Order: sequence, then C-alpha cells, then structure tokens
Amino acid sequence: MAADPLPPPVAGFRTAAVAAGLKKHGGPDLALIAADVPAVAAGTFTTNRMRAAPVLLDLERIRRGYARAVIVNSGCANACTGPAGYRDAVRTARGVARALGVSEPEVLVASTGVIGKRLPLARIERALPRLVAALSPRGVPRAARAILTTDTFPKMAWRVRRIGGAPVTVVGFAKGAGMLEPHMAPPHATMLAFLMTDATVERRTWGGILAQAVEATFNRITVDGDTSTNDTVLALASGRSAREIRKGGSDRSALARLVAEVCGDLARFIAKDGEGATKLVEVRIEGGRTPQEAEAAAYRVARSPLVKTAVYGEDANWGRILAAVGNSGARFVPEAVDCFLGPVAVVRRGRWCGPRAEARATAHLRREEVLVRVHLHAGRASARVLTCDLTEGYIRENAAYRS
Amino acid sequence: MAADPLPPPVAGFRTAAVAAGLKKHGGPDLALIAADVPAVAAGTFTTNRMRAAPVLLDLERIRRGYARAVIVNSGCANACTGPAGYRDAVRTARGVARALGVSEPEVLVASTGVIGKRLPLARIERALPRLVAALSPRGVPRAARAILTTDTFPKMAWRVRRIGGAPVTVVGFAKGAGMLEPHMAPPHATMLAFLMTDATVERRTWGGILAQAVEATFNRITVDGDTSTNDTVLALASGRSAREIRKGGSDRSALARLVAEVCGDLARFIAKDGEGATKLVEVRIEGGRTPQEAEAAAYRVARSPLVKTAVYGEDANWGRILAAVGNSGARFVPEAVDCFLGPVAVVRRGRWCGPRAEARATAHLRREEVLVRVHLHAGRASARVLTCDLTEGYIRENAAYRS
Repeated sequence: MAADPLPPPVAGFRTAAVAAGLKKHGGPDLALIAADVPAVAAGTFTTNRMRAAPVLLDLERIRRGYARAVIVNSGCANACTGPAGYRDAVRTARGVARALGVSEPEVLVASTGVIGKRLPLARIERALPRLVAALSPRGVPRAARAILTTDTFPKMAWRVRRIGGAPVTVVGFAKGAGMLEPHMAPPHATMLAFLMTDATVERRTWGGILAQAVEATFNRITVDGDTSTNDTVLALASGRSAREIRKGGSDRSALARLVAEVCGDLARFIAKDGEGATKLVEVRIEGGRTPQEAEAAAYRVARSPLVKTAVYGEDANWGRILAAVGNSGARFVPEAVDCFLGPVAVVRRGRWCGPRAEARATAHLRREEVLVRVHLHAGRASARVLTCDLTEGYIRENAAYRS
Repeated sequence: MAADPLPPPVAGFRTAAVAAGLKKHGGPDLALIAADVPAVAAGTFTTNRMRAAPVLLDLERIRRGYARAVIVNSGCANACTGPAGYRDAVRTARGVARALGVSEPEVLVASTGVIGKRLPLARIERALPRLVAALSPRGVPRAARAILTTDTFPKMAWRVRRIGGAPVTVVGFAKGAGMLEPHMAPPHATMLAFLMTDATVERRTWGGILAQAVEATFNRITVDGDTSTNDTVLALASGRSAREIRKGGSDRSALARLVAEVCGDLARFIAKDGEGATKLVEVRIEGGRTPQEAEAAAYRVARSPLVKTAVYGEDANWGRILAAVGNSGARFVPEAVDCFLGPVAVVRRGRWCGPRAEARATAHLRREEVLVRVHLHAGRASARVLTCDLTEGYIRENAAYRS
C-alpha cells in the first residue's frame, strides 16, 4: 500500500536504473528488471495501428510465455521508426541478454518518449554494464523514476497477502501522463506498467488474470483521448511462492484481486498525474441501457474539454456534462436524467436543483478528487472512467514538449 | 464575397438586432429576421440527444416548409430547461408573431449561450417593439454581431450570381467558437447559421440543397469535439427572383453551388475563430480504404489535443499526427504512409524525411493557416475536416465562462 514508504522485494527479481544520457534534462532514464529464473510472462499492448518497435518485438516474444528480463528506456519512444527501429529494439535486447547471460528471446523491451526519433543505441550499450551491476532487490524506486517522462511523481503500488496460507507479493510500477487513453488488448496503453510477483502460477492463468485487471483499470483511464503507440503492461511471475495457484480455484480469485488492486492504484496515480492536471476526476455513469452505452457516455464526459476545463475552473457546469452524455450515442430520456457532483444532486429528472445545490456542488469541486456521476434511468448498466482536469499546464507542456 | 465590405440586401427580407440585456457584458443580443412573405424554409439541427428547447420547437415547425420570421438570442441557450424552457420558446415566438402580425407557427427560434438557465422572457418581450421597429434590408451586420457569444468577430458571407439569366442573392451569417463539432441531420449543429435568398425554389429542393451544403461544410468542422445542444442552420427563400429553380436541372446545381460557397465561407470563419485559436488547421486524409475510414482518420487528427497543441507550438511533430491516424480505426500499412505539412513531405512511406524537411515544415507551421495532410495509400477515399489549434486561451475561456 502507498502507506508504506517503499515496496518490499519480490523473491526472484532484481531491478536497477541508471542515467544513460537519453533524456534531454538528464537523470536516470534506463531501467532493467531481471528475473533469477525464467518468469511466467504476460503482457497487454496498445491497439494503435502505429505500434512502436518495442511493442512489435514484445508481441512476438510474449508468446513464449516466459521472460528473464525487461529493459525500459525513457526519452525516446522508438515509434514510427520502421524496420530500423525494430532492429534497434532487437539490438537493445541482445545487449541485455549478453550482459545477463540469458538467451536473447527471453528479453522484453519497452520505450517511452519522443515519437520518430531513433534510439541512441551506443549510449544504451555503453550503460548496460553499469545497469547490470546496479541490480538489486530494492531497485524498484529508482526504476520507477527512470521511466518517467512528463510525469511529476513516480508511481508504485504493492500488496502482500496470504493466499491459501502462503504469502504472495505483487509489486508494480508505472508511468504515464500524456498521449494517454490506453486501450490494450492481450497479448496485444504511452503508459508503461510493470508487475512482479513471486506467485507460482501457470502462464494461461497469469495471462487471464493480467488481461482482466488491465481491462478494469488501465483501460479505464484517459488523460487526453490520444491512445499511444507504445502502451505496454508486462507482468512477470517468478514462482518462488510455495503454493501453486491453479485455474478456477479460490486462490486464482485471490491473486486476481491482488493484481487488480495494484493495477488500480497505478491507474489512479496515472490519471491524477495527467499532464498539467490539478484534479483527479472520476466519471461514473449509472442506469445505462447497455454496458457499451454506459461506457461510451462515461468516456464522452471524461474526454470533453468543456467538462474538464469547468472542473479546473471549479464551475458546477452540469449543462456541459449533460451535453457530453447527449453526444455519446447512449439512449435515454432527457427528462429522466439525474446528475451529481460528489454527493450533491445538481439535476433531478432533467431539472436543475437550484442555486443552493449548485453552491454545494461547487464546494465539492474545490477538492482534489472530484466525482461526476450521471444516472440515465434507462437500464441497469454502469461504467466508470478516471480522468483529470484540463489546464493551461497541459497546453504549455505539449506546445513545447519537443523543444 | 468577403472582399465587399457589407452584404447586399436580399429581396423579401429585413433584419434587425437590439440589446435586450441578455448578455452579461451588454451589447446587442437579440436578432430578428423577418420575411415579407411566407418564405420557403429548411433547417438542420443538432443530433445531440439533449436538444435545446428552441431546437425541439423548430423541429416541429420546420415541417410546414414555410416561415415568416426567425428570432435569435445570445446569452442563454435555453437548453436543459425541460418543459418550462419549451414554453419559454413558444412564448418568445408568440411575442414575435404578434409584433409582426403573422401567425405563431410561422416563427422559428434559436438560442445560444449558457446551458441550464431559463430564458429572461420579460426582457425579450420588452425589447420586441424596438426590435421590429429596427428591421431593415441592411440589418444583417448588426444581427451577425448580436448572435455572438465567445466569438471574436462576426461571420457573414454572400454570393450574387446569375442563374438562368436572373440574378440570385444568397446571404448568410453565423456564430460559433466553442462546444463545437456540428453533426446535423435534416430536419434534424452551438453553432448557429442563417441563410437568406431571394431564389424561387420549391421546399423539397431547398431542403435538399441545404442538407447537402451543411454536410460538406458545417458538418466538417470541429473546435473541441463537443457537439452542442443548440446547433441550428435555418435557410429561408423569399421567392422574389424571377426564375423558378426546379428539381434536377442545371439551375438547381447553380443554386446548390451558391449555398455551398456561402456555407463554406461561414464554416471556415467558425473554425478560424475557435475559442483561443491562433491558427486555422485543415486536415486532409487521402488514400483511405473507405470514405468512412478517411473521415474517421481526419476527425481523429482534428480532435487530437496533442496535434492541436503541437500546431500551436509550431512544432512539426508528425509522430503525433501518425499516432492519431493509428487510433482512428482506419486500415492502412504503417510503412506505406506519407505525411505532409503544407507542401512539405515530412514522412514518406512511413519514414522520416530528415531534419531539412522538418525545418521547412516548421516554417509552414508559422503561417496562420496550416494544412495537415496524410496519404494512407490504402484506397481512393479522401476526407477533409477544418479545425484550429488548442491554446491557453481555450482553457482560460472555458474555465471561467460562466463566472
């Protein structure tokens, strides 16, 4: 939990980060996760058609179901770099394989940063010996910092819980602040997240657990609606815990819950750290006719620049919220709709609840975490999307990102 | 043409505007178009499910095919106001009908401004005598100013051309800067536009001409992706020109061209005047597999906050453009794609054209009108969407709009 200051070690894994000179403004920018044994590996990847080279490479390699290492760089996305970029990704993995003494296809890669730039291979290769020498069971905090781009804080989450008597640890770290609306498919979000566990779990079960967790967490956040070319979640299980987790049993649900909680924390951190954001916004749609319609409505509200700027301005502008819902394609009767800001109803049965309710809603908007809730009264489906407000900070950051 | 300083009068129409005290910061806010005879009327309206009261009323009344007047107010959208708001719209129309001595159902209404506020009926009714007294064949410039909200300049366009020997005049005026991505259906866009012509044309032909023009112009602009509750285009034809325009003939095409040109000018003014905008951006997708895919790709680029902030920052960040295309669902081979900024190719067959090309592209981005063009090489379909850049001005305007 975030209450603890630092994540615990995960049996079977060591992590490290160094400064390789990939980021313009310096600092650690190259991270490595190494498993002592071939770890059961699962991944989910962006559904953007312009998939970055590291994603293309991981898509091939994840099929093996096992991995020994993940090398991650910030500063360069290695996206839109064509076959040459793909070869760069392979060469990075090869360097890691040699340095660790493992076989090349057991190395996965991930990149984040500017699109269209070639990876500075020489710098990466020069940094590898230092990186491997720095590997430590306590290396996650440094790695979590090295993978950041426009993020303002490192994102780590963990859980330790007994499953069938034996303690299981799940530790994750992530980055992501802009070009962010992950829609990942297994094995197919630039958000990056890496999970390690000591659980003993068979690869299909592990893949299923990850896919389910990603769908409910990372795939339900949006900063700016732009799905990245590089979104990647990789999850490694070392099998060091005593008890094997089997398909279908209660142990599986327990591990799935652990993974979902860690992913949930990381997803929340990402939404909170959206570029320029001052507030975390949870959009909840209830009473939709179908889950698809509820989801479409939730995304439409969460993506609306008018809703997001109103939240930034702490303006209880419910008209913009209802207009966004009205654009979603969800079927509902306007005269039946309720709209809440936090605990305060601002619209009931399509009607404004008056200036007092609006004043109380405005008070809710002054908080750092805001809830926008709409009940469509058209069915029983609900959906939830996390986002952030839209501020001058987002504009400044993105009008000047490359320069 | 915009070269002339002021639009010519249109036989059969008078226009006026007054200050009725509806806008917080004063100035004219109530406009009236009056036809001397029942004019052939056509309209297109927002497809947002939360349709404003004036839209609901016009949807009923436009079916008659004839109208004598259009009353338009700014300062209040009369949207999300329920049955009471509908009654306010009816009462506004009734007041106009009495003041003009025409029958009530011959009066159309349009509103723009804050959502959720009731219309200040007493102020409108008090202003009606002054409004009617001010009617003039030369009233369009004042009306064009009265309907503005966050717009920075009035939007007028006109054409006078001979059709089959007789001169035909088409004059239009419009407003719109935010909550703007019209998707209008006939008889079913907050943009408002009003067209007047002296053409003699039968109602179905007129309706078809308008629908076609709207689809190619107003329905191809986006400022922020938020389709309004109030978007409305109303087009009136007085029939004062000598020659009747019939279905199917070359006269019809000539009139359609005139209307499309006027709508095209107005749509361009709206995109250029998007809230906070410093640049007009034309997004063109070529070589799409289907028209739907080309259109989806064009909208995805035009809506991308990352593309729009890069244009604002005059950064030739083609990676963001290709990432947006990759998110659109359009099918293409990444290695086949070309990307141009203005006349400059920055990507050919999926590969970056180098720093020189990028420098030339950056020079193009310093212009006030920017062209972003992507060739997918996947088919023969193309699409074009107009938008603007995304700046701190948009944030400031919308974080503080109601206060």
